Amino acid sequence: MAEISTYNYRIEPQDVDFTLRASASSVISYMLNVAGADADRKGFGVEELQSKSATWVLSRLGVEIYTQPEQYEAIEIDTWVNEFNRLSSTRNFRMRQCDKLLAAGVSQWCMINMETRQVVDMSLLKQTYEQAMVAEPSPIAGPARLRPTEPTTTTSRTVVYSDIDFNRHVNTLRYIDMVFDAIPLELIEKNAGMRIDFNFIAEARYGETLTIGISSADNVYQAEISSEGKTLCRARVEFK
Amino acid sequence: MAEISTYNYRIEPQDVDFTLRASASSVISYMLNVAGADADRKGFGVEELQSKSATWVLSRLGVEIYTQPEQYEAIEIDTWVNEFNRLSSTRNFRMRQCDKLLAAGVSQWCMINMETRQVVDMSLLKQTYEQAMVAEPSPIAGPARLRPTEPTTTTSRTVVYSDIDFNRHVNTLRYIDMVFDAIPLELIEKNAGMRIDFNFIAEARYGETLTIGISSADNVYQAEISSEGKTLCRARVEFK
Repeated sequence: MAEISTYNYRIEPQDVDFTLRASASSVISYMLNVAGADADRKGFGVEELQSKSATWVLSRLGVEIYTQPEQYEAIEIDTWVNEFNRLSSTRNFRMRQCDKLLAAGVSQWCMINMETRQVVDMSLLKQTYEQAMVAEPSPIAGPARLRPTEPTTTTSRTVVYSDIDFNRHVNTLRYIDMVFDAIPLELIEKNAGMRIDFNFIAEARYGETLTIGISSADNVYQAEISSEGKTLCRARVEFK
Repeated sequence: MAEISTYNYRIEPQDVDFTLRASASSVISYMLNVAGADADRKGFGVEELQSKSATWVLSRLGVEIYTQPEQYEAIEIDTWVNEFNRLSSTRNFRMRQCDKLLAAGVSQWCMINMETRQVVDMSLLKQTYEQAMVAEPSPIAGPARLRPTEPTTTTSRTVVYSDIDFNRHVNTLRYIDMVFDAIPLELIEKNAGMRIDFNFIAEARYGETLTIGISSADNVYQAEISSEGKTLCRARVEFK
């Protein structure tokens, strides 16, 4: 058993949107940075996995944002892993300013083989992982399983250089940008909090053409991002 | 007269491209962050200017990148202002790892009225500014004045939420992304250094449709970004 770890950051100018508050994609970016740093520190980071020809893939994400921190503000992020089986691992996040909770998140990860891109049995990390588990429940409900939706508007765009990560696949954060870019500016500007759910289903490569389909009802936006008929990810954003 | 100021950063996962090195747009992002922080510290930052209904606008930028720092590496950035007249101010940058020079930059700024968007005479800051000047030449040749070019390929895209800054205009860094997104991946991957020149001419707003025109000859790429027939910015990237 281990303890919750805490990491400190500062909101930089490139993290904020036109309201001078950290965008949802930046809030999630900080959580994912902490996931990477903490996995490294606990002995199951990307470099360690590469020696076994494996890598981490984010499969589902649930995030609630209560208050978006402002430019130059300091933040603390707590993280801990509290579930782990052969196919999936759950990592949690709390973004805070002292006792004030700004955002919380639950992420589910699987391990894949880097060449075959097939899921790997995580028992291979069992011992290291068991030592890293923390007996603390997730701070919010886990990521929802999202069903297919019928988009009412669609746009498309090509995957470019600034979209891709070291696997030459579209970076997770770009999907989050694509969804928020489809939401009316006024709703983002005046939001009083939100719940975000993402399901990551397949990977898209450099040069592919993505189709971003959106449907909305009241304060709920649902997105279906696909490429050549294959669903890549689904998202749901609910504004308070 | 003042001294050169130095700021410390670390290259975070969101700063690197698929080669796991800081992208050109991240290198420039760090320089612009330092410009903002240093102007604040010296008494002519954005907040101080806002009290006079004025703001800074970047008009030209010249950057040479010799070595792109890698993910998680620490970097230092030196900055100093060494020229200043009624219409323009010159701020310089050196990005280093101890004595190793990674990149250098020269930026030219003008001050505009926030409502009219017209250039303001900077004499109003003369005293504060004179105290901040450093008697050190620019580290590289100043930004080139770029002439119109005839694009051989053009693409277009709409200005979205993730593109805009607090003025609801397209963020400088997005223009840099647009140019690099039009350059072949192999050239970016295998680059042995580059020189970048940008001229920022007019501003684009949320919802406008941008046209990105590109022409190339050998290792030189030139870009002309426009909206509704109005040129917004010109860029030139020369790979070694």
